[in-house]
Amino acid sequence: MFYSKENLRFLLEDVFNAESLCRFDYFKDHTAENFWMMVEAAETLSVEHLRPILLEMDRNPPHIENSRIKVHPKMLELMKMFGSDGWISMSAPNKFGGQQAPFTIMQSCAFIMAAANYSTMAFPFLTTGAAHLIEAFGSETLQQQFIPKMYAGEWQGTMALTEPQAGSSLSDITTTAKPTEHGHYLIKGQKVFISCGDHDACDNIIHLMLARIEGAPAGTKGISLFVVPRMRQQADGSLAFNDVNTAGVFHKMGYHGAPIAHLIMGEKNDCHGWLIGEAHKGLNYMFQMMNEARIGVGLQATAISSAAYYAALEYAQTRLQGRKPTEKDPHQPQVPIIDHADVKRLLLFQKAVVEGSLALGLQATMYFDQWHVTEGDEKEENYLKLELLTPIVKSYPAEMSILSTSAALQCFGGYGFTKEYLAELFFRETRIHTLHEGTTAIHGMDLLGRKVMVKNGKAAMLLMQEISADIHNAKQHDALKLNAAKLENNLQELQQVTFHLMGVAQAKGAEVFLADATLYLELFGIVAVAWQWLKMGTKAHEVVASKKYAASFLSSKTHAMNYYFEYELPKTAALAQRLKSDNFSTTAVNSDEIV
Amino acid sequence: MFYSKENLRFLLEDVFNAESLCRFDYFKDHTAENFWMMVEAAETLSVEHLRPILLEMDRNPPHIENSRIKVHPKMLELMKMFGSDGWISMSAPNKFGGQQAPFTIMQSCAFIMAAANYSTMAFPFLTTGAAHLIEAFGSETLQQQFIPKMYAGEWQGTMALTEPQAGSSLSDITTTAKPTEHGHYLIKGQKVFISCGDHDACDNIIHLMLARIEGAPAGTKGISLFVVPRMRQQADGSLAFNDVNTAGVFHKMGYHGAPIAHLIMGEKNDCHGWLIGEAHKGLNYMFQMMNEARIGVGLQATAISSAAYYAALEYAQTRLQGRKPTEKDPHQPQVPIIDHADVKRLLLFQKAVVEGSLALGLQATMYFDQWHVTEGDEKEENYLKLELLTPIVKSYPAEMSILSTSAALQCFGGYGFTKEYLAELFFRETRIHTLHEGTTAIHGMDLLGRKVMVKNGKAAMLLMQEISADIHNAKQHDALKLNAAKLENNLQELQQVTFHLMGVAQAKGAEVFLADATLYLELFGIVAVAWQWLKMGTKAHEVVASKKYAASFLSSKTHAMNYYFEYELPKTAALAQRLKSDNFSTTAVNSDEIV
Repeated sequence: MFYSKENLRFLLEDVFNAESLCRFDYFKDHTAENFWMMVEAAETLSVEHLRPILLEMDRNPPHIENSRIKVHPKMLELMKMFGSDGWISMSAPNKFGGQQAPFTIMQSCAFIMAAANYSTMAFPFLTTGAAHLIEAFGSETLQQQFIPKMYAGEWQGTMALTEPQAGSSLSDITTTAKPTEHGHYLIKGQKVFISCGDHDACDNIIHLMLARIEGAPAGTKGISLFVVPRMRQQADGSLAFNDVNTAGVFHKMGYHGAPIAHLIMGEKNDCHGWLIGEAHKGLNYMFQMMNEARIGVGLQATAISSAAYYAALEYAQTRLQGRKPTEKDPHQPQVPIIDHADVKRLLLFQKAVVEGSLALGLQATMYFDQWHVTEGDEKEENYLKLELLTPIVKSYPAEMSILSTSAALQCFGGYGFTKEYLAELFFRETRIHTLHEGTTAIHGMDLLGRKVMVKNGKAAMLLMQEISADIHNAKQHDALKLNAAKLENNLQELQQVTFHLMGVAQAKGAEVFLADATLYLELFGIVAVAWQWLKMGTKAHEVVASKKYAASFLSSKTHAMNYYFEYELPKTAALAQRLKSDNFSTTAVNSDEIV
Repeated sequence: MFYSKENLRFLLEDVFNAESLCRFDYFKDHTAENFWMMVEAAETLSVEHLRPILLEMDRNPPHIENSRIKVHPKMLELMKMFGSDGWISMSAPNKFGGQQAPFTIMQSCAFIMAAANYSTMAFPFLTTGAAHLIEAFGSETLQQQFIPKMYAGEWQGTMALTEPQAGSSLSDITTTAKPTEHGHYLIKGQKVFISCGDHDACDNIIHLMLARIEGAPAGTKGISLFVVPRMRQQADGSLAFNDVNTAGVFHKMGYHGAPIAHLIMGEKNDCHGWLIGEAHKGLNYMFQMMNEARIGVGLQATAISSAAYYAALEYAQTRLQGRKPTEKDPHQPQVPIIDHADVKRLLLFQKAVVEGSLALGLQATMYFDQWHVTEGDEKEENYLKLELLTPIVKSYPAEMSILSTSAALQCFGGYGFTKEYLAELFFRETRIHTLHEGTTAIHGMDLLGRKVMVKNGKAAMLLMQEISADIHNAKQHDALKLNAAKLENNLQELQQVTFHLMGVAQAKGAEVFLADATLYLELFGIVAVAWQWLKMGTKAHEVVASKKYAASFLSSKTHAMNYYFEYELPKTAALAQRLKSDNFSTTAVNSDEIV
């Protein structure tokens, strides 16, 4: 298997009590049982339909034929299935035909599907995100026109931000929108790296696209959001080409199943777009989709780490090689490599990353769901914690997945480098995650330069309070006291670093303050995942008596927690030391002094 | 360019004074000028012949045709050139037709060639290593039969150790050798992962192969070394098939230009092999080639990191994106991304890894050359330091190359994941290096379990003395005092950790002692590279007045040293903390407690 169902159950039921969401009116039709049925259905779909085509998709990447992108033929059937079986709309409101499932459950299902075959995932869940945007900010006409087809899996949704000259710098977007007297705008420009931006597994592609209305202010304050379909509906209901041209498909290192398009709009001046919400507020709207997608990226990186981990674990349990260091007799049989301490270490590292990242992701989805359905202070508190965690939930799993899939590959020895096993595929596949939905550097600046500062640090304060409460809980158990104390120290250290950096901001200005924001993000991520491990360790301790879980599952949990606190958490020392140092700053190095 | 010629010159001439080798009789025909001509020739060859086929080789990996492996057609011409231009034999003794060049210069040339196109490198330098073995331990008949053809590039040499059931566990080799009355042995068995084990760019493949003579003791003490050609010479001088069958070619993630073969010997009971040296001493002989190859692997990993670094540097200098955090006006032009602090950090990280690894590798080759040509105590001292450094010189560059090429890829943003640039190729290519020539775990155990202990720690003591002398030199310069003191502290910490672990060995036995040997290797590696950076920083300081190097080269060196001491060296803290902890050991985790 490519994930642990027992662990997902432990997280949803015991650590996060997802069932508690059913107390809210919005989720009242749901029960714990029906959450679990969704998870089971995601597994069935993944095992029967997604994993079987993983290798084929890798070996046969999308390609251009007659100016269209062709994807794996199975995607046609899958898109229909994602629609008819309710995957695309599962978290959508009932009034749009959705099931009003929590984001937590939708992301849990998506996690399983991504562990099976990451590329297939982009198709349905990008459509979900795009449809949510139209639901939230689009006119009723736009909603009626687009949402049903999107939830049916007939029309693909996308998120079209990036342009060749403006990758991370959204303020430099130059795609233009010229108003017409017919209500629509004429769109002209180019977009690159558009996931599922064109393919032949559905009838239409609906781009949620950022563009600048003629005369709009420069920078991010002049960006508007449009719905720009590849084919537009005629008065008679038929579809006509909307001048959205496929200029190319990107050939890439992995993630081969998903087509990444280069699009050119308005070559014939006939690309119609419809404004979503108010003019010049497009980036704010888009952030809704981007924030959902960022949590998704973290969980998808985790999913690939999970797939690699279980592949490595199975190999380590069955591959015979060598003997224990204390066994000098070559006549004795060779042992499974999992018996070697270093292989155990590689596996525990992966488990610590996978389960820590998954817990952190679900922590964020729980804030998301509670933010979504609560009011007043409770709403704001959930929102602030969610906002603060988002860059971490995106980046820690993404960065660590590079190392975790690499550790999985290492477990296979020389075979890991070959295409005889999937390890090399996972290693290639996951490398996208520190790049898309904002590079790690962008998230570092988002965390330190924005999120930590919001409302005079209120978000950070709320999170610290919650972590402190969990430390307090852990301290009730003798077996957890040591790790609880370690986390407490690290939390204090993180606060010291934060205050130190605020001093730097005042004394040295924004550039020096933000110079090592990526390291701050890394530090925060290690501490946040330690918090999740302490929570899991505490819960594992508490549920022993219930016999709900196998003893080996719970002792494995405790071992992985201890691994994390012994091997991973100490890495904060070097980061904190560096972040508190004023001895060297990259901002003092001239660009021409790097040769 | 894919490497820094100025840096290589700085290392060879100023840091290591390679010219000093010319005082030894063995190298007396050489001069600094002629060393540099070899380096220049390697660059010319690399630019004109190797780099131009890098991409083609990646896109068209070797394949099987009629039970033979076909490689890129250009390799036929290149093999002849590697032979006729003296690359294969450059370090061989004059009496075998070689140029008696130092290993240091040969590896410097190989470094450039590997930076241009890593795969092409395996062909000539594996042949060199195999020929050296025959020179050192083979009979005169074998020498005459094989060496001239190998140095001419007509016959490929290989190193055939690994078997499917015995990867890292050489004691489990089962290939058999049955004596005959004609002087040769009949070889039967299988070998996997044999680099250049078969291809169509030369007339014959000469395997230096480990096998077990019938009746030999079990384990490593019953392994002998044979020369097993693919085609054996008949009495009339013609070549006849020697029953060495190509069972397959491995398809792999990168390193596509080099064919990695699966071989089956003796399917028709007609595979002749000739014993090299004495029976049952094969593994000792093979270690000569393996140790040379291990230093080579470290330098080749460094070469790929170098190629990726210079690709990223060039991109960062030219790609415009965003503005400084202090620039809020979107009308201002975008800046080259190298102006962003985080991109500088990514580049300085790569530079620190590349130049630190290269220096460490050349430190080892200098020990190698001096060991080779000295006598008595001096010989032993060089040998011991070389032996101690070998696992580090192999593993630090290999492990760090994964991170360094990943950082290079990150500099390209989303484009890094695409095949439009070479970054993804370097990331794929370098992943082999922690696997072949002994996995990192094997080297950790070699370092901690063997090398550190040799002669009651004499090797470690000698190395510590040399490092201490370099610290003393650095302290003569005010600008270097702080870093010198840091390294001094880290050296003491490393010694403390070593003594602590020796206590563990006595108290808890070999398994617990070696459980975290990989972390010990990592710790030692970080300190060893800090030593090299301090040496380079000191020398950069000393040569300023000479005007030999551009000011930007020297200030860049100092910045990279400071980067290393601020960002990399502090990572020892977590490793030392872990290695001194007795709170958690993977040996205490049962294999079935990892789920």
